[in-house]
Amino acid sequence: MIIQYYVGSAQEQREEVRAKIREWGLRVRSSTGEKEESSDTQIHVDNVFGNVKDAHRREVETFDCVKAVISIEGVPQNLSRVRRGGRHTVTLPNPHGGKPVTLGEGAPLAIIAGVCAVDRDHTLPSHQMAKRSGADLNRGGAFKPRTSPYDFQGLKEDGLKVLCEAREAVGLPVVSEVLDVRDVDLFMKYDVDMLQIGTRNAQNFELLIEVGRTGKPVLYKRGFSNSIDEFVRAANYIMEQDNDNLVLCLRGVKGIGSSFRNQGDMDEIVYLAQLTDRPIVYDLSHSSGKKSAVFRIGNMAAAGGADGLLLDVHVSPQHALVDGFQAVDSEEELTRMIAMWRQLHELTVGIP
Amino acid sequence: MIIQYYVGSAQEQREEVRAKIREWGLRVRSSTGEKEESSDTQIHVDNVFGNVKDAHRREVETFDCVKAVISIEGVPQNLSRVRRGGRHTVTLPNPHGGKPVTLGEGAPLAIIAGVCAVDRDHTLPSHQMAKRSGADLNRGGAFKPRTSPYDFQGLKEDGLKVLCEAREAVGLPVVSEVLDVRDVDLFMKYDVDMLQIGTRNAQNFELLIEVGRTGKPVLYKRGFSNSIDEFVRAANYIMEQDNDNLVLCLRGVKGIGSSFRNQGDMDEIVYLAQLTDRPIVYDLSHSSGKKSAVFRIGNMAAAGGADGLLLDVHVSPQHALVDGFQAVDSEEELTRMIAMWRQLHELTVGIP
Amino acid sequence: MIIQYYVGSAQEQREEVRAKIREWGLRVRSSTGEKEESSDTQIHVDNVFGNVKDAHRREVETFDCVKAVISIEGVPQNLSRVRRGGRHTVTLPNPHGGKPVTLGEGAPLAIIAGVCAVDRDHTLPSHQMAKRSGADLNRGGAFKPRTSPYDFQGLKEDGLKVLCEAREAVGLPVVSEVLDVRDVDLFMKYDVDMLQIGTRNAQNFELLIEVGRTGKPVLYKRGFSNSIDEFVRAANYIMEQDNDNLVLCLRGVKGIGSSFRNQGDMDEIVYLAQLTDRPIVYDLSHSSGKKSAVFRIGNMAAAGGADGLLLDVHVSPQHALVDGFQAVDSEEELTRMIAMWRQLHELTVGIP
Amino acid sequence: MIIQYYVGSAQEQREEVRAKIREWGLRVRSSTGEKEESSDTQIHVDNVFGNVKDAHRREVETFDCVKAVISIEGVPQNLSRVRRGGRHTVTLPNPHGGKPVTLGEGAPLAIIAGVCAVDRDHTLPSHQMAKRSGADLNRGGAFKPRTSPYDFQGLKEDGLKVLCEAREAVGLPVVSEVLDVRDVDLFMKYDVDMLQIGTRNAQNFELLIEVGRTGKPVLYKRGFSNSIDEFVRAANYIMEQDNDNLVLCLRGVKGIGSSFRNQGDMDEIVYLAQLTDRPIVYDLSHSSGKKSAVFRIGNMAAAGGADGLLLDVHVSPQHALVDGFQAVDSEEELTRMIAMWRQLHELTVGIP
Repeated sequence: MIIQYYVGSAQEQREEVRAKIREWGLRVRSSTGEKEESSDTQIHVDNVFGNVKDAHRREVETFDCVKAVISIEGVPQNLSRVRRGGRHTVTLPNPHGGKPVTLGEGAPLAIIAGVCAVDRDHTLPSHQMAKRSGADLNRGGAFKPRTSPYDFQGLKEDGLKVLCEAREAVGLPVVSEVLDVRDVDLFMKYDVDMLQIGTRNAQNFELLIEVGRTGKPVLYKRGFSNSIDEFVRAANYIMEQDNDNLVLCLRGVKGIGSSFRNQGDMDEIVYLAQLTDRPIVYDLSHSSGKKSAVFRIGNMAAAGGADGLLLDVHVSPQHALVDGFQAVDSEEELTRMIAMWRQLHELTVGIP
Repeated sequence: MIIQYYVGSAQEQREEVRAKIREWGLRVRSSTGEKEESSDTQIHVDNVFGNVKDAHRREVETFDCVKAVISIEGVPQNLSRVRRGGRHTVTLPNPHGGKPVTLGEGAPLAIIAGVCAVDRDHTLPSHQMAKRSGADLNRGGAFKPRTSPYDFQGLKEDGLKVLCEAREAVGLPVVSEVLDVRDVDLFMKYDVDMLQIGTRNAQNFELLIEVGRTGKPVLYKRGFSNSIDEFVRAANYIMEQDNDNLVLCLRGVKGIGSSFRNQGDMDEIVYLAQLTDRPIVYDLSHSSGKKSAVFRIGNMAAAGGADGLLLDVHVSPQHALVDGFQAVDSEEELTRMIAMWRQLHELTVGIP
Repeated sequence: MIIQYYVGSAQEQREEVRAKIREWGLRVRSSTGEKEESSDTQIHVDNVFGNVKDAHRREVETFDCVKAVISIEGVPQNLSRVRRGGRHTVTLPNPHGGKPVTLGEGAPLAIIAGVCAVDRDHTLPSHQMAKRSGADLNRGGAFKPRTSPYDFQGLKEDGLKVLCEAREAVGLPVVSEVLDVRDVDLFMKYDVDMLQIGTRNAQNFELLIEVGRTGKPVLYKRGFSNSIDEFVRAANYIMEQDNDNLVLCLRGVKGIGSSFRNQGDMDEIVYLAQLTDRPIVYDLSHSSGKKSAVFRIGNMAAAGGADGLLLDVHVSPQHALVDGFQAVDSEEELTRMIAMWRQLHELTVGIP
Repeated sequence: MIIQYYVGSAQEQREEVRAKIREWGLRVRSSTGEKEESSDTQIHVDNVFGNVKDAHRREVETFDCVKAVISIEGVPQNLSRVRRGGRHTVTLPNPHGGKPVTLGEGAPLAIIAGVCAVDRDHTLPSHQMAKRSGADLNRGGAFKPRTSPYDFQGLKEDGLKVLCEAREAVGLPVVSEVLDVRDVDLFMKYDVDMLQIGTRNAQNFELLIEVGRTGKPVLYKRGFSNSIDEFVRAANYIMEQDNDNLVLCLRGVKGIGSSFRNQGDMDEIVYLAQLTDRPIVYDLSHSSGKKSAVFRIGNMAAAGGADGLLLDVHVSPQHALVDGFQAVDSEEELTRMIAMWRQLHELTVGIP
């Protein structure tokens, strides 16, 4: 912890802070005695060493003479690209008849496409269309977190059944969102290949722990308004369960003045790829909320360094139970998009 | 649903939208034939009637000719001040030796004060200090949602025990945060008087449902970045469980450029009080994160129309397990604050 | 400047940064040799001394091994409460027949009320109503900054004439917004008592300088999305012109999910009052944009420590040229509000 | 204007609103008599026709029974892609020895590269490096808008001189930022090829008008926190001066939780390209503020549909007067970047 005092703060005030720090068993080293500190615009900075906790930092912040406190903790250990010696991949074994799928540096761009909400009639044809167009995984929501209780909440267990039956026919692994710690067993029973944690549950830490414990690949979405620091710290709840199969997913954030459903955060692809060792997926449909923007947004994410792209598709969007409006429904268009995204990904591989 | 088309959009484009709407079994009424619509800057607007769903609205938004879509649903039914004939109160019976406590219009300003995280040594004296200073309820966290898994996570069941033992001695009802649907029974076992849902779980709808089902008074905090509309809609998950004991709690939001831990949202007190029938509590400590701001922030919330104020207190902040820095620790100061807040509340009662 | 390196960064990388710093003629002191730094989770921090500039800080930030850079400059010198020995007041002499008006600590709450945009027929009666209700200053916009060129832009010089003629009759000093450096002379010609710089021009530094140079009292509004740090730094453009008559005005900011026209920033009253020596005004009408919220918002600002409140009034809002909807139009109501605000201000004077 | 009333609002309340509207000389058409409106959850919506103004809309919003008001104005006329029959280009004639440069649909990707702040020693070699690497225009700031008056403010007229002398040697047109209406003549005297309006002056409408009047190509940057609607409306201040040479520039916005200097807004490229006929430039350096992110961010903007990219370059960043840290300094790297960006642009031309 580094403490920066206000210019003009009194010596006694600063000493109070230091006394408190020593009380906690920590050591303080003050930047005094410097020539530039003897002037009228004297700068006072303390370095604090020892087992510094958030609580310490926060208490120090409350002293009137303190201008700022800076943490000197490292990047959360499990995710650091530097500590882990480069970036890593996550592989879905796919025991359901198809090929394993790998996400991450060195692997081809992974396309995750499927229905937003599983329905009985269109999940299979939609997922077949996705496969023919070049997708690697199918997504489909059986449990839907809806802002209002009066909205459709998903087919629940029936949805998992439909999703996994379609998987047998299609041959691609499936990813589906878990909302409740009590449902995790159900997802295991149906052997869902990858468990998704959605943006509304990004800080539902109990859920992160339970999902992490399964050892299954996890697609973890950034919270609506979480900073990357909050996102990465919380991701450790998953990895701390001895689960190395974590994939980070960006999906737009709350912003001021955005023209889209959410404000795109594709620039964070670059940041995450430099900071962590985790594969990164960008969600094209939920960030923009506009089908007409999906192609271009996908271009950006692919050329920006994403390891995977996620999008909603539906053969009959007008019958989609949720968010049909943003689903791509033309196989020809989808095929063209995926080909372009793969081309952009290959072209830009290796750019730092 | 009302559809506004772009000026200059083509007739055929608009007809496509209308065809789709009729396909869904809805009726469209177009604002055509008006004099001002025959000009070059013709305005086109459709009214859509029937069982309009979010999915419809969203799909309509994706048409290129559509400028905007506006929902014409009413305010969520359960919370509407107009529909419910004024504002309502929530009463905590307090079977533990003290008086019942009522929050809401007509009742005195309720003060909820206690430790942020329950600890073994300071919870009782802190809650006694709060009572002597004039508080009506004690708060104390046994389960703590922390951004990182490496931070202290609360004493858990032991914390509930400590909290409820202190209650016997103090005589005030207690409120404590539930993080996990599987813990709800435990809260019932200890007969916690009011269950809190925290900001990180504001859209953990499964938790809202389970907590709602208990019938217990609920203190429901706004999510970090939820709009009031999202907040109020989600609140219906609780009330839909036949639970009328819902209290809404504002606690600051994520903002750009705020000087405090969060950006204060006390202006929403005014909005919520005009819109809903629910009692409103403002969290002084977690919004500002600065002990030195608590007095003034409390003044604002009290004079602004809050029905209750929540704050952290601790007899020995340097030993607090979480957020000690923001806890008020002086009984004299706390007594003065509460007296002032009550005075401001009384003085401003009845202002619309 | 303090530099914090990533845990796990290489010694050579850090040395590159230090070499660059020395190249600039600055001195570095590294926190090496500490016991806790020899472990695997070694923390590296450098203190940099000398004439550190923004450009230095920014370049250092770009090194891959750098986690964070913290500035150790003091609070902008001109505004610091500590450096200036407490808080100060600003007095408008009011040579137009009335009493001088003082804003700031120790003075009564100042009420600035008037029409949003000056019009020919209602400015005088509106300002008379404001005076009868207890206002101390009249505001009125002659030059209006409008988002679109197709909106009404103000009566311009005619508006100043109308405003200042009304002043002769009413006897209160007037405040009006300047948009253009070329108009400053005009404001001097009409001897406008206080010049306002609006939110859209908060970082139009040329305008700040020109307005500052007049020596006139200045009402300087925070930019839509400026942090308090940006606000306070820019304020120095005014005070650097040997103008000590600066009053800071908060007026709501852009936020996510606000129910009002802007998100209220009244909590910053507390922050500014603790940080700077400047009088603080809160703009009730432009923050909320709702007449029905003005009373309660005013309560908050008054009880929160504002030195002045600003609001729109109009005797005939339906004829107001701009923002009539948010203007208070009832003298009885206004009188009651102002009395209440004054009472709240007096009651809470002296709270830190 | 469309008015949506609260469910449960009283007939008399709604009639008050309608009376006011008729008072203004507007016509109201209410959606009454519909079957679904006779139920308990009756929906009430009015369409208002005539010369509806912002002020009307705002006043209507203040009625208690009004839930929402929606504007039905068209997209600002001057910029609408639909009205103007597609997207347009802007050409800089370049009378200074080089080729004319065209920005916009159909033209190659334009690269604007140069020093952030003009300095005496490095502007020429930096701009020569930019040209050799493939840039089409040089940027250089002579007048710098700085958050604090104590920061370097630019070389001013000397800077223009240096910039334009370099132009003679380099042969590329130059773009430079104007801060003050009084400086416009100076920019004309030096025949600066393109005038930039910066983010801090995005709503300095007087400046927009004066710059628009020159007829010169204008690079107009989005304000820090302006919505696209505000951005596009204000752009009309420029085009209303009979100036068709307007280029829109995105440069990141203020956001919550961004890891970069600003939150990237490259997704708005897609929106603007679908909405308006204007060429769109993305500013790589000021959005991210990190040299290490420029390559990838450029990929995104190029593949996302930008017509031009702007970035800081400097042959000796440690001597740069402003923002040297974010300047690209390697000719080899810059050449590689520009080639890649052009390739991505060509590959994705024609994607909607």
